Amino acid sequence: MPNSLLAEVIPISSQLKLAFRNHPGGVAVITAKSEQGNVALTATSVTSVNAEPPLLAFSVSALSSSSPKIQTVDHIVVHLLDADGIEVAKIGATSGIDRFADTSLWSELETGEPVFHAARAWLRCRIVERVDASGSTLYLAEVLETSISDDETAQEASDGLVYVNRTWHRLSEDSRIG
Amino acid sequence: MPNSLLAEVIPISSQLKLAFRNHPGGVAVITAKSEQGNVALTATSVTSVNAEPPLLAFSVSALSSSSPKIQTVDHIVVHLLDADGIEVAKIGATSGIDRFADTSLWSELETGEPVFHAARAWLRCRIVERVDASGSTLYLAEVLETSISDDETAQEASDGLVYVNRTWHRLSEDSRIG
Repeated sequence: MPNSLLAEVIPISSQLKLAFRNHPGGVAVITAKSEQGNVALTATSVTSVNAEPPLLAFSVSALSSSSPKIQTVDHIVVHLLDADGIEVAKIGATSGIDRFADTSLWSELETGEPVFHAARAWLRCRIVERVDASGSTLYLAEVLETSISDDETAQEASDGLVYVNRTWHRLSEDSRIG
Repeated sequence: MPNSLLAEVIPISSQLKLAFRNHPGGVAVITAKSEQGNVALTATSVTSVNAEPPLLAFSVSALSSSSPKIQTVDHIVVHLLDADGIEVAKIGATSGIDRFADTSLWSELETGEPVFHAARAWLRCRIVERVDASGSTLYLAEVLETSISDDETAQEASDGLVYVNRTWHRLSEDSRIG
């Protein structure tokens, strides 16, 4: 059963990348206000962990340019995006730009964190645990406050946004199976 | 900006659930051989964390019937599923059934763990850290061995499988945007 030929040809780290390249992820943008300035990064690793107390988790790669800033902050805002949020998702995923250049896209909470308006929901969180993963970091965070669009609370699901293998996808009735 | 009306009406734990209900997730099935027997559960929380060494993470809810068994094991197999794996995904997500009843769907590795054949890739892992999250658990695991379908290695992406708001979705050229 194990693909022994593959194992002989490429190292295990490359096998991990190959396997996960085609694993889809819902799209979030994480922001924070650090002493070095505002930070925003797009992540497909955000997951709900526990309801009471409300906890979520995400990971940041050692290779991410945002990693040093996120390391220093106590609070973050997790934006959950739908297909209407793709432009913000792209901003958070693009290297070498000022991700806050377009000031019409975001504003500042009373608590200081930048919030992008295009999110279908955002959750302001306090980081409660950082787990070192060989340079990358796994974060556990408690949700303190949320803002959820009226459509969501009315149970009208918007079109989901998914990232896989360097492509963006929209979920809709047309993609539904099963 | 915060939806203060919502915050007055429903508790923060319900706000978390409401926000994440429409957050899509790629679909994985996690299996293990425990002293209490084989275990299989479907999870949308699996994420790649680090390449060198190869690390992945996932979480298991305190409410999951599989949680006590997963707590006791050292090794797991993470199956990454595509749309062809939906039946196995449903098995791992259905309560009150023997998830290994159909012996044509799986076999046992030399190391003892059950492996479902329908996975597009599987990764056998050693659990390296368990983080308690108020009864739920966040797992960090090192990848020891993988099997990846020939299609994947040939860079022919199969149709991704996504779960959101109790529905299954197929990713394809038709769902691609952006």
